[in-house]
Parts: sequence; C-alpha cells; structure tokens
Amino acid sequence: MQPLIAPSILSADFARLGEEVEEVLNAGADVIHFDVMDNHYVPNLTIGPMVCKALRDYGITAPIDVHLMVKPVDRIIPDFAAAGASIITFHPEASEHIDRTLQTIKEHGCQAGLVFNPATPLHYLDYVMDKIDVILLMSVNPGFGGQSFLPSTLDKLRQVKARIKASGREIRLQVDGGVNVNNIGEIAAAGADMFVAGSAIFNQQDYAEVIQQMRQQISMSGSGK
Amino acid sequence: MQPLIAPSILSADFARLGEEVEEVLNAGADVIHFDVMDNHYVPNLTIGPMVCKALRDYGITAPIDVHLMVKPVDRIIPDFAAAGASIITFHPEASEHIDRTLQTIKEHGCQAGLVFNPATPLHYLDYVMDKIDVILLMSVNPGFGGQSFLPSTLDKLRQVKARIKASGREIRLQVDGGVNVNNIGEIAAAGADMFVAGSAIFNQQDYAEVIQQMRQQISMSGSGK
Amino acid sequence: MQPLIAPSILSADFARLGEEVEEVLNAGADVIHFDVMDNHYVPNLTIGPMVCKALRDYGITAPIDVHLMVKPVDRIIPDFAAAGASIITFHPEASEHIDRTLQTIKEHGCQAGLVFNPATPLHYLDYVMDKIDVILLMSVNPGFGGQSFLPSTLDKLRQVKARIKASGREIRLQVDGGVNVNNIGEIAAAGADMFVAGSAIFNQQDYAEVIQQMRQQISMSGSGK
Amino acid sequence: MQPLIAPSILSADFARLGEEVEEVLNAGADVIHFDVMDNHYVPNLTIGPMVCKALRDYGITAPIDVHLMVKPVDRIIPDFAAAGASIITFHPEASEHIDRTLQTIKEHGCQAGLVFNPATPLHYLDYVMDKIDVILLMSVNPGFGGQSFLPSTLDKLRQVKARIKASGREIRLQVDGGVNVNNIGEIAAAGADMFVAGSAIFNQQDYAEVIQQMRQQISMSGSGK
Amino acid sequence: MQPLIAPSILSADFARLGEEVEEVLNAGADVIHFDVMDNHYVPNLTIGPMVCKALRDYGITAPIDVHLMVKPVDRIIPDFAAAGASIITFHPEASEHIDRTLQTIKEHGCQAGLVFNPATPLHYLDYVMDKIDVILLMSVNPGFGGQSFLPSTLDKLRQVKARIKASGREIRLQVDGGVNVNNIGEIAAAGADMFVAGSAIFNQQDYAEVIQQMRQQISMSGSGK
Amino acid sequence: MQPLIAPSILSADFARLGEEVEEVLNAGADVIHFDVMDNHYVPNLTIGPMVCKALRDYGITAPIDVHLMVKPVDRIIPDFAAAGASIITFHPEASEHIDRTLQTIKEHGCQAGLVFNPATPLHYLDYVMDKIDVILLMSVNPGFGGQSFLPSTLDKLRQVKARIKASGREIRLQVDGGVNVNNIGEIAAAGADMFVAGSAIFNQQDYAEVIQQMRQQISMSGSGK
Repeated sequence: MQPLIAPSILSADFARLGEEVEEVLNAGADVIHFDVMDNHYVPNLTIGPMVCKALRDYGITAPIDVHLMVKPVDRIIPDFAAAGASIITFHPEASEHIDRTLQTIKEHGCQAGLVFNPATPLHYLDYVMDKIDVILLMSVNPGFGGQSFLPSTLDKLRQVKARIKASGREIRLQVDGGVNVNNIGEIAAAGADMFVAGSAIFNQQDYAEVIQQMRQQISMSGSGK
Repeated sequence: MQPLIAPSILSADFARLGEEVEEVLNAGADVIHFDVMDNHYVPNLTIGPMVCKALRDYGITAPIDVHLMVKPVDRIIPDFAAAGASIITFHPEASEHIDRTLQTIKEHGCQAGLVFNPATPLHYLDYVMDKIDVILLMSVNPGFGGQSFLPSTLDKLRQVKARIKASGREIRLQVDGGVNVNNIGEIAAAGADMFVAGSAIFNQQDYAEVIQQMRQQISMSGSGK
Repeated sequence: MQPLIAPSILSADFARLGEEVEEVLNAGADVIHFDVMDNHYVPNLTIGPMVCKALRDYGITAPIDVHLMVKPVDRIIPDFAAAGASIITFHPEASEHIDRTLQTIKEHGCQAGLVFNPATPLHYLDYVMDKIDVILLMSVNPGFGGQSFLPSTLDKLRQVKARIKASGREIRLQVDGGVNVNNIGEIAAAGADMFVAGSAIFNQQDYAEVIQQMRQQISMSGSGK
Repeated sequence: MQPLIAPSILSADFARLGEEVEEVLNAGADVIHFDVMDNHYVPNLTIGPMVCKALRDYGITAPIDVHLMVKPVDRIIPDFAAAGASIITFHPEASEHIDRTLQTIKEHGCQAGLVFNPATPLHYLDYVMDKIDVILLMSVNPGFGGQSFLPSTLDKLRQVKARIKASGREIRLQVDGGVNVNNIGEIAAAGADMFVAGSAIFNQQDYAEVIQQMRQQISMSGSGK
Repeated sequence: MQPLIAPSILSADFARLGEEVEEVLNAGADVIHFDVMDNHYVPNLTIGPMVCKALRDYGITAPIDVHLMVKPVDRIIPDFAAAGASIITFHPEASEHIDRTLQTIKEHGCQAGLVFNPATPLHYLDYVMDKIDVILLMSVNPGFGGQSFLPSTLDKLRQVKARIKASGREIRLQVDGGVNVNNIGEIAAAGADMFVAGSAIFNQQDYAEVIQQMRQQISMSGSGK
Repeated sequence: MQPLIAPSILSADFARLGEEVEEVLNAGADVIHFDVMDNHYVPNLTIGPMVCKALRDYGITAPIDVHLMVKPVDRIIPDFAAAGASIITFHPEASEHIDRTLQTIKEHGCQAGLVFNPATPLHYLDYVMDKIDVILLMSVNPGFGGQSFLPSTLDKLRQVKARIKASGREIRLQVDGGVNVNNIGEIAAAGADMFVAGSAIFNQQDYAEVIQQMRQQISMSGSGK
C-alpha cells in the first residue's frame, strides 16, 4: 500500500487550526491524525467532535483519522462520525465489547481500527482481523507529548506486519510516537505504512520539506515491497 | 460590579479560534468563557488546556474563564492554570473535597467558583462563601447546545444575589445558557452581573452590535444598583 | 387526591407475573409498582424493561409505576418508556443532572418523580417542584426485603406534604417500605396518598380483602381533607 | 457428551414464565439458559435471582444455567446459588480475580464457566482449564437481541474444542447467539455440544418440533464422535 | 459530656505502634483516633483492620475511634467491628445509603457517626439525628497532614452544637485537624467535646504534659456548661 | 541468582512492626515483602507509605519489596518511592498503561515488576521483558490470608522461567501464597528464586530455624543450576 503521512494536529496551532491543517495538506500530507483525550483514559483532555466538524466546515476534505484515547468509547463514536471522521481507532482495553465497537464504527460509515499501547500484547487481534482496516502501534505511551520513539516497537511492527500478510487482507499498519525524518526509514522497513508525526512536522518552518524528506526515507527503506 | 459579557467559545469557529476570540474581544466582550467537557460529567467532549494555551500564545490577554464540566476535577486544574486560565469554576457534585479544590485553584493563581445545575440546591454555598470569587448558575442543563433559558433561574438568581449581599463579599454572579438580547435585561434585573452567551453572539454577523444591545438591555434593567 | 394502592410486584410470584398482576388489579389495586434494581445502586438485581413490556403484552392496562433503583439512570429511561411505563421515579443521588433526567422522562411521555432514601435530605426538592408529578419517600432502605416501616418517615411525610401544598401543584406523595394494614392509617394521616405495599398484599390469601382494609384505614385516617 | 438444548428465557413470555419454562422442558429442552444483564456490563437490564427462585418454587427441576452479563460478578454469585442456579458462567473481563470467582461458584455448589465475547481471545483459558465445567462462546455481542450468528465463531469453536480435548477433561462447549435449525448442524460439527437458542425456539408455535429438528441437525452433523 | 482527648495515630510511630498507643493512653488520652484512608476517597493509603486488631491483641482496651476516609464504606465495616473498633464514622458523600450504613455499624456493636468535610453542608444531619452517636467536623481537608485549623470551623461547631441540643440526645461533637494547645480552648468554647490531635501530641516529648495542657485549656474555656 | 527469602509482614505483629522486621532480618531474611491492599482491587485494606517510611526511620536498611494490590496504581508510586521502597510490583490488570507505570517506578529509583494472579495469562510479558526486574506469580488469590499453595503454579513457574532464560536478562522469579518448608523445595525446583512466606515464618517461635530450613530445602532442590 502507498505510504501515508498523517500529521498529528496535537502539535498544530489550535488558535488557527483550519489554516494549519490546510497548510500541512498542501505541503503533501495525506491524512489528518486527530488525537482525542478525555482526562480519564489518559491524563490529558484535548479536542472533541465539534473541532472535527469545524475542520470539515472550514473546507478540509482529506481523510480525518480519529484516535480515541477515551474510555468508554461507544457513546462518542456516532458524534465523531457525524462530525466528519473518516477513520476511528480505539484501544481494546477501553471497550468491553470490542467486536460491537468495531461494528458501530463501520455502521456509521467509518473505517475502524485498534490501537496498541507499548506493552499491550497482540492477542486482541486474534478474532478481529476480518473486521479492521487499521492497526495502530503506539511507539510512546499516549497522553504525553515530547517522548522518544520506543525502539522495541520495531519488532512489534514486524510481528503485526506478518499477521496482516497472513490474513490476506488490506490492513493499514500505522505507527504513532516519536516518528521523525531520522527514524522513519527503519520504521517503514519494519512494516509500517502510515506514519503519524506531530512535532517532527509542525515544529519545522517548511512542512513540505520535512514531508518530502520523510517520503524519501520511506522510499529508500525499500518497504512496501 | 460592572456587568461582564463573556462569549462562550463553544459557539465560535474552532477552525479559526484565535481570530474569532480576537474579533469578539474587539467587539467589546470582557471575558472569554471556555467550556470544558470530558465525555464523563457531560455527554460531550470539547477542548482542553492546550487550546487555552494556544489562545494565550496567539496573543489573547483578556481573562479566560474556564468552566469545568468534568469529573473528577482536581488533576486538570494545574494544567489549566499553566495554560493561562484566569478563572476556574467547577460543579460541586464533581468534587468530593470542595474546599480543597477551591484552595487548589487559588494556589495556582486563579479565581475560583462553583457552578450550579438547574436542579442543584444552594446549600453547597453554606461553608464556602468566604472562598469563592464567582457563582455560576446554569440556566440550561450543561453538555447540550441550543437550549432555551429556564425561567426558574430568575428566582434562583435572586436568592443567590441575596446570599452574596449577606456575605458582604464581592462575588460575581454569572449565568450561562440561553442568554440573549431579549432576556438579558430580566436576567440582569434578577441579580446576574456576568453573562455567558454563545450562539446569541457568534451566530450574528455583527458581534459588536449584539454586545452593544446586550449592554443596553442590562443598563436599562436598572440592575447593579 | 384519591388515595392509590400500588402493590409492589417484588413480592408477587415472578413465575406467573401476568396472572398475579391481573389478580391484584381485579382485587382493587390502582397502580402496579415496578421495582428495578441493578446490583450497583442497591445490592440486588430484579427486573428490567422486557418484563414491563411482557405485562403490557399480557394485557395489563393499569398504570405501571417504575421505581429505578439504578445508577446511572438516564440510559434506561427510554427503554422503560417504550416498554409501557406510566410513571418513572429515580433517586437524586443517582443522577448528576436531575433536571435533565426529569425532562427526559417527560419527553418520553411518562410522569416523573424523585425518590428519597430515609436519610436523604429534602433540599433536592428546592428547584424541581414545578417539574415533578410524584415524590416517593422510602420508609425502609431500598434493596432489601422484609424490613419494618421506619417511624421517622411520618415527620418527613408531613414536611413534604407541606412543601407540596406550598407549591400549589398536584404532586403525588408516595411511601414505600413496610406499609401494611396496621400502619397505613397513620401514614395516610401524615400526608401520603399513594401507598406501595409488597408482602402486606401478596403474602395474603385474599388480595381484595387486604386492599379493602387498607382503603378503610386510609379513609378512617381522615387524610386528604 | 450428549448435546444439550438450552432455551434462553430472554425470548420467553415473562408474564407467564413458569408455564413457558415448563412447556419448553416438556417439549424436550435439557437446560434453561438464564440471561442476567445489569445495565452496566451490557446496556440492558433483565432478570435477577428472585426470578430464578420463582422458577424453582414453581416446580422447575431442570438445570438452570445462569449467564452473568454483569460487572462486577462476585457479590451476586451466592444469591444465584441460593436461588437455585445449577451452572454460573461469567465474562473474564468482568472479574479481576477469575480464579477466585470460579472457586466461589464451586464453593456454592454450582458448575462454573467462562464466557467469551466474539473478539475476546482465548488466552483467558490458559490457567483455568482444570477449574471450569463450561466454556460459552458468544456468537453475537451480548446485550442486544435479534442478531445473526457470527460465522467466525465456527473457527473459534474448533480451537476451543481442541483445547478441551487436549485438557482431557469433560468441559461443555456452549454457544449462544443466532443459533437456529439452519445453522445448528454446522455449529455442532465445529464442536459445540450445548446450544442456547432464544427466538428460534420461543417464536415458534410448536417448541417440541423445533427442538426435535435441532436434535436431528446435530445428529446429522456427525458431531460428538 | 466529659471532654475526650483522642490522639490520632496517624502521627504516631508506626514501627512501634503498640508502645506508642500505650504511652499516649498512660499519658491521659481517652480514645485512640484511627485514620483509615484508601487511596480513593482521599489520595493516601494508611492502615486497615489488621492494624486495629493488632492493637487489641497487644492489650489496648481503650475505645478505638475508626474514621473511615474510604469510599464505598459498607464492605469494610464488619471487618473493623471484628477487629475491635468502638466507634466508626464515615463521610456522607461516601455512602449512597447513609441510614443503612449507620444501621450496619450499630448492628455490629459499634457507635456510629457522620464526618463533615470543611465545605460539606449540614443538611445530611436532617434525618439521622436519632441514629448517630458522634458528629465529626473536619477542620482541615482530609488526606493531607500538617495543615492548619480552618477558623470557619468555629461557626460550624456552634451550629452543630445547637442542633445537638435541639435533638435532646447525647451526641459527641468531635473536631479533627490542626487542633493544638493554643486553639483547643476556643474550639471547646464553640461546642466541641471530643478533640482529635495528631502532631500536636505525638511530636511532643512529653505526651502527658501536652494532654494536661489541653485539658486545662478546655476547662478554662468554660465549655460543656 | 541467589535465592531470596522475603517474609510478608502481613503476618507480622503490626503493633510492634519495627521489632518484628528487625528480628526476621536478623534471623536471616533477605527482603521484606510489603503487602499493600486498598479495599478496591482486593477486599481488604492493609498498610500504606507511612508504614513503609516508619520502618526506614526505625533503621531498617534491607530491601523493601512493595506489592501493590491497588487499582489504579500510578498515583501512589512516588509516595512509596519516597517512603523507602526498593522494589515495586503491580498487577497488569490494575494499570491501563503498563509500560508507563513501569517507567514511573524506575524513574523513582525502584526496581519494577509485574504480578500475575493464578488465572492471569502470561501474554502481559510479551512486550515488557526488557523493562522488568521481577516477575511475581501469585500461588493463591490475593487479599485473603490462610490459603494453600495452588499446585498449578508449578507449571506456570516453569513457563515463566523459560521465558526469563530466553530473554537473557536477570529477572527475579518470585512466588507468593502458601509457601512453606514442605513445598519450598519443589517451588524452587520449578524455577522460583524469591520466596514470599507469611505465616510459615511469623507463626513460628524461631524465625531463624524456619528460614534455615527453607534455605536447606531450596538448596536440596538443586534449583538455580
């Protein structure tokens, strides 16, 4: 699958979010990664459905990839679907009825996925591979910014990649946390094909340049073959 | 006390929040009302400390009045203080140690207040009048937009006003929910001196005009005397 | 208001509930009291909306008075309304948005009320008298059967009766717990006009006789004048 | 093991439950499946221990198989044992001390089992195979009626069957959700030997006929050999 | 009533608790105040029933006054009663069935009481005055040590004292938080007759001397008349 | 690794804890096992950070191994580190961010570990082997005393031992519950190298003798080779 660059708006300027998102898309980003925290599942509270809807009303048409760091998850899913979400992912620990939550996301017209914390084992994939579109591996612990990429994620990526191949289905393998130009190549080589990057993009002057460099690194990694 | 107009940014355009807030302040607003919902205390999730900080970084210097519709409340208070909050209010049902929460807000350099839902009785004021700067009466049930002002709020405003006078302290009496040009006069007459308005302001073309009309109605109500 | 006898089906035979309810109504009961416990708000789990609906499908047309001993309360209200509930009451401690819960019950076409545990103070009535149709005073602690009527309920009944009179509205004053032929007279004299009785009715051979005796006691108490 | 047909009383007529249960047993059912929901673990509230006891008092002597869709589970176990439960199963996600919960069920004289939601992985079996009498695979998401059998359950049944065989113990393999005459054959072929069926039985005119057809399908599947 | 000095063992040396308690009793203390925190109701975890029992096994026969800063409260009450507690008090916000909790304490042979946080209103007393033996007013926020006495407690003490007198019953009025030799006089004058003191006693070299001084101050306050 | 004997102070005399701990260390114990229960994760409340600190102030310098049977775990970790804990272990079910909790323990200067209940599967080890210093297998269900060693623990010990060997790291394999002189040999043979024992030590007259016997049994088991 074509590698996707997904800037996390957590690092964008919330005072001029429409403009920021527009700029980063013009600079070549593929998807907007939308980090939702509820001060319960993680000790931070960020942005909700109304902010998602504001981006749609502003004219953003690119896919919006909503990462729910909330617990419980079910009640807010229809709200995000109505607000224009394209993809909705959640943590398996945050839902007691994972199959039902996946179904709910799909019934509301979005793609669905599971997110794995660094220590979360992969067995939650055992009976859902036919129902998911995305698997997101956290390469830092969610809720806190400015963390470095956990190198143990590389092995985990390879294991998930193998499970995806074994399933015979087209499932995105996404990684989030500490991704930057320097490590994106080996992350791609380990199997990721969707790359969330926050400060690595938004803290740069020239968004297009860094996204270009990321694509180059991914391409040089020989991944996707 | 001088009446204060506090536009609720819940009705602003979240895609260009800095601009919106700047405009409404230029149009004569006194305070920015910042609605924080966590999808637990109320069934909605809005915006958190990072959005507050983005407004400060954008250059907003007006007071920011953070209304916490979250439970529990204590952990997030230092985050909002660090993000530039001026006032922090919370619901007494959302804290098991109300006195301690009020102290925490003050220790972090903010003004502190309690918020009363429409059915919440006033006895929570019995032992905190010497520790609060603001009392906020909800005139709708929090968490949902587009509701009409509950007329029973007027009597409750009069009762709170009487308690404030009896206390001999300078405590703001704020009202939130369904406030508009048509009812702001009688709300002021009932004792309110801080007026949260969302769609009544942000859904208008000319913010200055509606704020001007509100001030006129308040003034004509003869309140504050 | 006409006194109402409301047998609690908690004491009926759950294996032949339709028959039991029919019999007790034929014996002169006015309303069916439906006790819902969720093993969270009280340490017992009883019956839910499907059982209510089964009674309607069986042909029961008398009012069904659903007493929610559950927490939280909001999600299940539409289910009970759809299942045929006539009245829905809940404990104020079990809802963080009491006004909203009352509105929800009414929007679903039912009468609404608040329930007070033996130690629950009456201040929860302060701002809802214009929104309720029933006030239920518990004269035992909910969740457990076979308890005796707490005599301190009599004073509380008188206080609530006074508040109802002061409101000028038609609000039912219901009592539940340990009510029987021997004490129903003084309970009525204290102001109650809706009487929940469980074992006092269902443990008798002749439902009509006991209901008849209850009415006589109420009548002799001179209440309702 | 002899295949067992376990009608779910969730689809029976709750207004005449004793009669319904008696009829379905006379029609050839082996076990009564008793669905307990608490409005917390699943968004529905059904029936509790008092209803179970009413069936025993009515004269029902067949095994009652209590499926706890509640969280937490421990407190209510003795109540169901006292009310006449024969088997008690629970979801591993609903207990933090699974081994202790299994012990509690056994100490109260009931058979014990674990229930797996469609997406729940099987690793919860790793250290309990010597302590359980039943494994229940949900072939729909619990809490909602009228769902179709999830075909992915068939593979999962085969995997559990293999684990049961490897254990060398006599453990029932039960399936619940969307089971009917048309699919019961392949479900049996996949390894199930205890079949919960709700509407497939109770929505028919002739319970005996459908149970008879089910047994025939199971028999023709060649399972149990 | 005779004033009682109740040293809080929270300030004693937990490595030699038996000795400490013995010493402070020999020094003239009347009651041992036992602070139980569960890291949920307050952000600290202290000591539980086994420590209480160890004191009894050590030979302590003085009354042990268990102050539960835990939520929920009901499950642990029989444990403390079995461990030798004489008095058990709890916070009304920590029990949804206050009357039942009070009954439970009494049924287990202990005296029962309610504890009021600094901001907690007194209406929780409205329907329990006939069921309590002690009222404890917190003069600091529970869970944290080393806080100063909140002076607003004095007025609240006077109000509670008036309610106790009006009740005609013998109810202890206890105060906890920042009590020392310097302020115990005015606290006694405000109506308290049971004084919890932690560091004010245990941080002194000579326990007898400070207890003696406390009694003198109480006596000089002219309270209890 | 050298086998370690870790007496559980849960069985010591809490009235003279310093003395008890001193004695058991003088008798040859290596580590003090400190059982923390919060009345939420398990139905018991024991001792918290202040008791740990009291032992340090008493002069105890041996490692203190804090076993957190609490949920949630994160807030109390810094408190225990400040109170002198050497090792902190927790149950993976009690933290939603296991990697972050492990990091927090290490950042506060303690060794970190995971605890497995009897039925808890080992997959929680999949992505943390490089971050832990200790693995504790419960051989009874936590929260209750006086239970016998569950023999199925032996197989689980062997499996964990194999994983530790495969990791190439030095990770302690600890066992807790029903360990005594009679079974410690086979427990050691199964791979354990850190032995928690409560009543088996503290209920004996001569601590040194029983510890000596335990070491002998371990030594004779030929483990550790």
